Amino acid sequence: MTESVDVRTTTSEWLAAFQAALTARNAGAAAALFADDSYWRDIVAFTWNITTVEGAVGVAGLLRATLDEVDPVGFRLTEEPAEEDGVITAWIAFETRTGRGSGLLRLVGGKAFTLLTTLDELKGHEEPSNGRRPAGVRHGAFRDRVTWAESRAREEAELGYTTQPEVLIVGGGQGGIALGARLRQLGVPALIVERNQRPGDSWRRRYKSLALHDPVWYDHLPYLPFPANWPVFSPKDKIGDWLEMYATVMELNYWTSATCTSAVREGDRWAVVVDRDGEHGGSSGVRGSSPASERVTVRPRQLVLALGASGLPSVPDFPGREKFRGDQHHSSAHPGPDQYKGKRAVVIGSNNSAHDICAALWEVGADVTMVQRSSTHVVRSDTLMDLGLGDLYSERAVAAGVTTFKADTIFASLPFRVLPALQTPVYDAIRERDADYYGRLERAGFDLDFGEDGSGLFVKYLRRGSGYYIDVGASELVASGDVKLASGQVTELTEDEVVLDDGTRLPADLVVYATGYGSMNQLAAGIIGQEMADRVGKVWGLGSGTTKDPGPWEGELRNMWKPTAQDGLWFHGGNLALSRYYSLYLALQLKARMEGIPTPVYGQAEVHHAQ
Amino acid sequence: MTESVDVRTTTSEWLAAFQAALTARNAGAAAALFADDSYWRDIVAFTWNITTVEGAVGVAGLLRATLDEVDPVGFRLTEEPAEEDGVITAWIAFETRTGRGSGLLRLVGGKAFTLLTTLDELKGHEEPSNGRRPAGVRHGAFRDRVTWAESRAREEAELGYTTQPEVLIVGGGQGGIALGARLRQLGVPALIVERNQRPGDSWRRRYKSLALHDPVWYDHLPYLPFPANWPVFSPKDKIGDWLEMYATVMELNYWTSATCTSAVREGDRWAVVVDRDGEHGGSSGVRGSSPASERVTVRPRQLVLALGASGLPSVPDFPGREKFRGDQHHSSAHPGPDQYKGKRAVVIGSNNSAHDICAALWEVGADVTMVQRSSTHVVRSDTLMDLGLGDLYSERAVAAGVTTFKADTIFASLPFRVLPALQTPVYDAIRERDADYYGRLERAGFDLDFGEDGSGLFVKYLRRGSGYYIDVGASELVASGDVKLASGQVTELTEDEVVLDDGTRLPADLVVYATGYGSMNQLAAGIIGQEMADRVGKVWGLGSGTTKDPGPWEGELRNMWKPTAQDGLWFHGGNLALSRYYSLYLALQLKARMEGIPTPVYGQAEVHHAQ
Repeated sequence: MTESVDVRTTTSEWLAAFQAALTARNAGAAAALFADDSYWRDIVAFTWNITTVEGAVGVAGLLRATLDEVDPVGFRLTEEPAEEDGVITAWIAFETRTGRGSGLLRLVGGKAFTLLTTLDELKGHEEPSNGRRPAGVRHGAFRDRVTWAESRAREEAELGYTTQPEVLIVGGGQGGIALGARLRQLGVPALIVERNQRPGDSWRRRYKSLALHDPVWYDHLPYLPFPANWPVFSPKDKIGDWLEMYATVMELNYWTSATCTSAVREGDRWAVVVDRDGEHGGSSGVRGSSPASERVTVRPRQLVLALGASGLPSVPDFPGREKFRGDQHHSSAHPGPDQYKGKRAVVIGSNNSAHDICAALWEVGADVTMVQRSSTHVVRSDTLMDLGLGDLYSERAVAAGVTTFKADTIFASLPFRVLPALQTPVYDAIRERDADYYGRLERAGFDLDFGEDGSGLFVKYLRRGSGYYIDVGASELVASGDVKLASGQVTELTEDEVVLDDGTRLPADLVVYATGYGSMNQLAAGIIGQEMADRVGKVWGLGSGTTKDPGPWEGELRNMWKPTAQDGLWFHGGNLALSRYYSLYLALQLKARMEGIPTPVYGQAEVHHAQ
Repeated sequence: MTESVDVRTTTSEWLAAFQAALTARNAGAAAALFADDSYWRDIVAFTWNITTVEGAVGVAGLLRATLDEVDPVGFRLTEEPAEEDGVITAWIAFETRTGRGSGLLRLVGGKAFTLLTTLDELKGHEEPSNGRRPAGVRHGAFRDRVTWAESRAREEAELGYTTQPEVLIVGGGQGGIALGARLRQLGVPALIVERNQRPGDSWRRRYKSLALHDPVWYDHLPYLPFPANWPVFSPKDKIGDWLEMYATVMELNYWTSATCTSAVREGDRWAVVVDRDGEHGGSSGVRGSSPASERVTVRPRQLVLALGASGLPSVPDFPGREKFRGDQHHSSAHPGPDQYKGKRAVVIGSNNSAHDICAALWEVGADVTMVQRSSTHVVRSDTLMDLGLGDLYSERAVAAGVTTFKADTIFASLPFRVLPALQTPVYDAIRERDADYYGRLERAGFDLDFGEDGSGLFVKYLRRGSGYYIDVGASELVASGDVKLASGQVTELTEDEVVLDDGTRLPADLVVYATGYGSMNQLAAGIIGQEMADRVGKVWGLGSGTTKDPGPWEGELRNMWKPTAQDGLWFHGGNLALSRYYSLYLALQLKARMEGIPTPVYGQAEVHHAQ
C-alpha cells in the first residue's frame, strides 16, 4: 500500500512540476526533470512532427521552440501508475491549444527516462464516434431530401472530376485503407487510387500458400477490430476479403484498376495523372455503371504515397537468364506450386517469401533447392508470438487489459535509440529456448544471424525491412535436407542450371527470384520524378549504420507519417500494426492543414541520403 | 455495506438451496423456493425448448421431467447481486450434463420471482473464439496442403451437390445470416438460399427513404458489432452493405438468386427444390464462374424457414382496382417518390411504411393523403430511444456496462406474461412527455392507440408484428395537415379516385397500398405445403387474446426458434435484435441434434391455430 502511494506521489509530483514549468514557459526547469539519459518522443502533439529529442538539452530545445504556440495544460495521470524494477510507468493525458493528447511516462529515480506525447484529437474536430456518432438519417420532413445512397453515389461520381479531394492516397493496400478510414472520420475528402481490380488484391495476388506471419492481435484495422473468431494467422485471401469489405463499410472513395502515372506540384495543389481502366467497379454497391478507360487529372492539396514494400520486384540481372529454358519469375509473380510437382525448383533467396515458396513446392512434391546468398534472421513463429509479442499482442495481453491502443502506445514509447538494447535480451531468450533448432539449422549449413547487434526481427524490419524469416514450417525442411540448401552467389544461368560462385551447378526446371523489392524511393520516383524523390530523400530506416541503413542516426523512421522536404508530400505504410497506429497521426496532420490550424514543424529531419 | 452483504447472503443462500434440491432430485423442494406468482423461463438449458412455467406447480413439473437427464450443477453468482425496490437481481451460471448455462434470477422476499436459464454452449463443442480461435494456417510442412481459398472454393462448389448440408436456411436476410454465422462457428454445415441477387437486398429493395427505425445499439449482429462510428439509424443501403460483407467475412455458404420452391420430408431428411438463377454470384471472391440456371434438390436434415415479415405483400382486393388509371402498387414495390412530384398520391395504411412513404412523397412536392383504416400506435423515435430502449440499448447503457448480451438477457428474462404490466408505465411516461404532440395528432383526426392494454410498441410487435409507427418525422406532417388525413374503409377505386365508406372521394394519380404483409404461415405453406403448415400452426404471437393474436395464452412466441410439431422444421426471424439473440439458441439445438446429443423436449407447445 505504502509503495503504491509512493509511486503515485512521485508521479503526481513530477507531472505537477512539469506542468508548472510549462505554464511558466520555463523550458530549463522542465528539462531539469529529465534524466541525463532520457528521451522525449513527440508524435504531432508539440512538434507537428514525429521526432525524438534526447536529454535535457533536447527537451529544452523542443520546449523553447514550441511552448508559446502549444500552450500545454492539464498534464495528469489517467490511471494508477505502476512500478517495476525501479521504473515507474504512467499513462498520462494533457491538452494543447489545438487538441487533446495522451502519452506514456517512465520515471527512474524521480526523473523522466522516457516520455511519449501524442496528439489524439483536434478540438472542435473530434471524430463522430460513440456518443458523437452520426444520426444516419435526419428525422423530420425536409423538401428534396437526399438519401445516403444518393449522397454516396454523387460523391463517388464527382470526386476527382467536378470536386477535388483534399488528399489523394496512391496505393490502396492496408496503409491507404487505414488512412482513408481515419480521414473519412475526420471529414477530410480523400480519394484512394489502387492499380488492382479489387481492394485486398495486393494480398490475394501473392503466392497461394501465403498467410500473415503476424498474429491477429497485431493486425487490427482502426475502428473495426477483427471478430473473436478471426484466425490467428489470416490466409491471404481472407485478409483480402476483409480489406475489401472494410473499404466498403468505411465508405472509402476508392478507385480500383487505377494507375497513378505522375504527380506534379502546381501552386498549393498537385496535378496527379491517373489512368482508370474500364474494368474497374465502383467501390460501393450504390454506384452504377463504370466509365470506359480514361485518363483523369486529380488535383488534391495533399499527396500521400502509400505504395507498400512490395512495389517494384527486384530481379538481379544474372548472366545467362535469357538462355534458361525453364520457368523463371520473381516471387511476386509465382503462381503457386501446383504445376511443379516432380520438377526441379531453385529458389534464390532465404527470407520470408523464399522459405514459404520452398515449402509449398516441397509440399506438392517438387525437388527444391534454396540458394542462400547472405545470412538470414530466422525465428520460430510460436516463439516469436510468445516471447516477442506476447506481452503486448496476444490473448494473454487482451486478458490483462492491454488494449490494442495501449499495446501500440507502449511500443511507440520505446525510443528507437534504446530499442535494440531492449530487444536483445528477448532474442537471447529466443536463442536459448530454441537452441536445438538453431543448432540443426546451422548443421544443415544455414547462415543465421540475429541482426548485426543481436537485436532481432523488429529492429531489422525498422532498419531495412528485410533479412528475416518468421518460421511457419520451412526451416525444418531446410534442417532435414528435404529442402536442399546451397550457399553463395549466383554467377550465371545456363539452359537448365543455376551456377554458383563455388562452381556448384543446380539443375533447374524452375527458378524463383525471391530477391525482394526495390525501395519505396524507386516507386516514388516513378510518380513524383527522380529530382523530387532525391530531394525528399531516402524513405524508411533509422540511420543505424547497419547494412542497408546508413548513418547518421535519424532518431525516427525517415520520412514516414510526417512532413517531408516537399510541401504536401507524405509517405504512409508499414505492416498492419504500423499502418493502424500512425494513420491516426498522419490523418490529424492532414486535417489540421485542411482546417488552417497552424502547424509549425519542429525538428524537421535533414535529408542525408537521396535514395 | 451491511445491505449489500445481506443481498449477497440472501442470493447465495437461495442458490445453495436451489442447487441442493436439484442435486437431491427434489423437485418439490426446489419449487418451494419460488414465489406463488413466479416464472421460470428456460431457453434450451433444461427443456431443449423455449418455455416458461409458472408458479411452484410449473417449476415442479419442469424439474420432475428433466432433472435426471439434465443433471444441473454449480448454480452460482457470476457477479455481485443488486437490489432495487425490494427486488434482488442476480447474474448466475450453472452447468448441465451437456453444456454450460447462465441466467438471471430475481428474488422478492427471499423467493424467486423470475428465473431465466439459457444454454450458452455445449461441452466439447465450444465456439472457436478468443483463446480457441483457429490458427488460420497449419504451421509445418505437409504434403498436398489445401489453402483456405481452395478449401472455401471446394466447399462452395460441393455443398448442396455432392455434399449435403446439415441445415438449409430459406431466407438470407438478417435472420438467416445471423443463424448462418452461429452455425458456422459451431461447425454445422449450413446453406442459405436467398431469392435476391445480393445479401442485403431485402433491405436495399425497399422504398428509398427507409432507414432502420431501431438504433444501432439494438441492431448488432453476432460476433462482429458495428463500429463506434456507425450511425444511430442505418440507412437501408448501408445496412444492406453491412449484411453483404458480413456474409462474406463470416464465410457463409450463401446462394443468391435462389428460390426455394418446395420442401418435402423424406425419412430423416428433407428434399428441398431450389431454383438457381444463372445470374447469381458466388458468396465469396474465391468462387469462379457461376453455373447456368438450374434446379437443385438439396437434402438437409434440418430445414429453417427464415422468411421474414415482409414476404408476401398483402393487397386488399378493392372493387374497381382494375379501372384505376394511375400508378398503383404495394409499398414493397414503391419505387421512391421522385417521379411523383406535383402528383396526387393516396397512401392506404397508417403504419411505418405508410408514414415513411407519405413523408418522402411530401418531401418531393407531391400532394399526399394518408388513409387511416384503423387505430395506430405512434411513438416519437427520440422518446422511444430515451424512455423505451435507453436503459438497455443506448450509449448511456454501454457506458453503464450493459453489454449487448446483458441487455438481451435482461429483456429475455422478463416473462411475456408480465411484460405488458412492465411496459405500460413506460408508455404512460411517453404519453405524458409527448402530450402536446399526441394532442396535435388527435386534433388532426388521427386515431391513436397504445395497444389494447396500453402496453405499447414492443408488446404489439410480439403479439401481431404490426400496428405502429416509430415517428421519424411524418407525424408532424399529419398533425399540420401537410399530409392530409382521411379515415375510414376503402369501398372502391374509380378511374382516378379512391372512394371511402363515408363517401369521401380522394382524387389520385398514385395509390400506394401500405397494407402490410401476409403471415409467415402463408410463406411457409408455399414451401412445405398447406397441410404441413396447418399442422405446425400459426407462427409468431403470444396468444394474448388481442387483435390478430387469438388466445389461448401460449407463454412464448408461437413456433419461433424452438421445436415445432414437424420434426426437422424450424422458424427463425424477427428484428435484428431477436435474430441476434435467439440465433444462438436455435443454433445450439441444431448442433446438438447433429452431434447426437439427446434433446428431450419438455413443454412442447400445443397447436391452437392452423394459421
